Amino acid sequence: MAQYSASIITIGDEILIGQIVDSNSAWLADYLFHAGFEVKEIRSISDQPEHIQQTLDDAIATTDLVLLTGGLGPTNDDRTKFALNAYFNGEMVLNESVLDDIKAFIVKKRGYLKLIENNKAQALVSDKATVLRNPIGTAPIQMFNKSGTLIVSMPGVPFEMKHVFEHKVMAELHKHFVLEAHAYRTFHVVGYPESELANKLEQWENDLPESLELAYLPSPGVIRLRLKDQVNHTHNINVQAKKLYEILGSQIIAEGKEKVEFTLGKILKDNNKTISVAESCTGGLLGHRITSVAGASAYLKGGITAYSNEAKEKQLGVNSATLEKHGAVSEAVAKEMAIGAAKAFNTNYAISTTGIAGPDGGTETKPVGTVWIGFYLEGEVYAQSFLFTHDRMVNMERTATVAMYNMIDWLRKS
Amino acid sequence: MAQYSASIITIGDEILIGQIVDSNSAWLADYLFHAGFEVKEIRSISDQPEHIQQTLDDAIATTDLVLLTGGLGPTNDDRTKFALNAYFNGEMVLNESVLDDIKAFIVKKRGYLKLIENNKAQALVSDKATVLRNPIGTAPIQMFNKSGTLIVSMPGVPFEMKHVFEHKVMAELHKHFVLEAHAYRTFHVVGYPESELANKLEQWENDLPESLELAYLPSPGVIRLRLKDQVNHTHNINVQAKKLYEILGSQIIAEGKEKVEFTLGKILKDNNKTISVAESCTGGLLGHRITSVAGASAYLKGGITAYSNEAKEKQLGVNSATLEKHGAVSEAVAKEMAIGAAKAFNTNYAISTTGIAGPDGGTETKPVGTVWIGFYLEGEVYAQSFLFTHDRMVNMERTATVAMYNMIDWLRKS
Repeated sequence: MAQYSASIITIGDEILIGQIVDSNSAWLADYLFHAGFEVKEIRSISDQPEHIQQTLDDAIATTDLVLLTGGLGPTNDDRTKFALNAYFNGEMVLNESVLDDIKAFIVKKRGYLKLIENNKAQALVSDKATVLRNPIGTAPIQMFNKSGTLIVSMPGVPFEMKHVFEHKVMAELHKHFVLEAHAYRTFHVVGYPESELANKLEQWENDLPESLELAYLPSPGVIRLRLKDQVNHTHNINVQAKKLYEILGSQIIAEGKEKVEFTLGKILKDNNKTISVAESCTGGLLGHRITSVAGASAYLKGGITAYSNEAKEKQLGVNSATLEKHGAVSEAVAKEMAIGAAKAFNTNYAISTTGIAGPDGGTETKPVGTVWIGFYLEGEVYAQSFLFTHDRMVNMERTATVAMYNMIDWLRKS
Repeated sequence: MAQYSASIITIGDEILIGQIVDSNSAWLADYLFHAGFEVKEIRSISDQPEHIQQTLDDAIATTDLVLLTGGLGPTNDDRTKFALNAYFNGEMVLNESVLDDIKAFIVKKRGYLKLIENNKAQALVSDKATVLRNPIGTAPIQMFNKSGTLIVSMPGVPFEMKHVFEHKVMAELHKHFVLEAHAYRTFHVVGYPESELANKLEQWENDLPESLELAYLPSPGVIRLRLKDQVNHTHNINVQAKKLYEILGSQIIAEGKEKVEFTLGKILKDNNKTISVAESCTGGLLGHRITSVAGASAYLKGGITAYSNEAKEKQLGVNSATLEKHGAVSEAVAKEMAIGAAKAFNTNYAISTTGIAGPDGGTETKPVGTVWIGFYLEGEVYAQSFLFTHDRMVNMERTATVAMYNMIDWLRKS
């Protein structure tokens, strides 16, 4: 099988001065991986023409596809288009169809046409480029060819980039390359630190056939193992997956490229069940994660974030005696919170979180990172405790992730 | 002033196959910017030794500081340490103090000592490196010198990297470099698309003194303008800031590097006021953003996410007649939701969100992206409507951001 290589280059100061996280590249890398490309490198560079040109030299010399994002905005600090044109020895020309697109876009957005100089400048393209129209923004997409490498320049605004990549650029890639998707499976493993999991899998990993490649993808609360076959033998992967299940059993709690909120959502939807959440230490994150899945309103009825004891009593019906006896971060309160959410929203299931996210609030017996998660399943109630780290945001993320994985586990057991 | 340049290199397949977003680099870039460095490039590369070595060649040739993250985990797919040692022509040696740290770390984490081979391997370091101890993990930090460039290798786990960078590496940077923080101000501007803002500021921007550099930092709901002086003349910046306020007035809604949740939190804390949230289309994100600030429990009492009409009535006391007459996405419902949250949690202020996040649920009169945000201020109630994009996650983020900025605006007006 032909394996094509790719580079992703992000242009602009926003990333270099740390103002934004480069989420575009991860999205593109994931897309390219699944389309069958091997991404060799991701670079974020300034929009200095010499920097762009030198980076292009490198990327064109080593990869079959170069994707550029950013630097196409209407403001003066965006110089990518001119640098690209110079690199390919072209002339900038006004593209009338692009200008029509821009006009139509502005009319749609504002209700009337008000074209400013900055907008007109966006219709300038290189005469060396193949231009793809951008149906949802004002920056056109340009494609160039050099030394057998395809170079595609796209806007940097994430939703715009994603839209034009999916709807315009992918079709072009299929014309240029004979793409074959990677054969792979991804296993979501819970309950192990990375080093212990590696230790447990050492023998199995050493015995893997040459063509198989294993990657550890740790994130707060879960380690995903991605097993990829270089020559696309699905059979090889399946044989090894069977062995992996023999070693890890139910510690493999899900499979697939999707995040856990998709898996949980699918189970709820398929079984026509509803869920609600009662949050303390996650402050809304658990509900946010569940509702980040399109169509979540079919199963998530709602949630209550109760930071204070008063709110836990009044909104979730937690007993003041329970709070007094056990404290807010306790098994008993986690259980009463879960029951309270299920009752408030009249749902089949409910998840609750109560813990000490940090950085303050820890005690000798309940240090920062102590978390109780409660689970309500049509009348049955459970709770589990965890000790996470001392980082507030990591504790919140980990609590939300673990809560969803364990809910899936309880659902399977029940 | 000496201006030092830096590169950030992230090693490992996780980013290249799109499994994780490189948030480390943005965090480091922000930190380096404020410390006075200019970040020239951020690269994510594989852990192939030749790739690491070639990238180091480039980075050392062009920058004064090279920060490496990742590739130090205990699993077999982490090869950075050996590649670095080979690059600097060193020998790997077992460092006993690092081994002691690892043992102590494991005892603290598990309660007893169980050292596996993978852990021992983490105590191997290059004899060409200056080793910094890692107090919160098992991977040591190594520093190298070459051709006047300082190279620092750190673990890739975000909270571990941040901790060692802040507590160990920064002190070393102050020893190696004469650092002077950048002179800059950041203005948060709301209410303009990027192209219109650029148009409005064109004359002012063209007239800026040579030493001033302007960057547009757009994100959902706000554009931040960063004005930096290359030669650290705070005076120059202040003169231009005054002009900027004359042009934009109250559209500049905040200043500073912090996100809006910090600004809102500070106002509430300073005035000893409390707040609650009632969320529909943001599904918990608004509460999560507010509680992401350490110490938020002092002012955020809680929140209710009510997806269904039934929950809006039962949990927030929205009238069924209002829902029937105006629909859930309406000014009247947004107002009643805000009142309901303030009542439920007994707070001074409340914010509500109700809208169509998408991708489904849009109608002719209320397309996807239609959002109403309600504001309750000690008895007064307001609501504002917005039309955002067709991307679910962007709509959620933008709604949460705009809700907080506008709450600040209402607080200032009241």
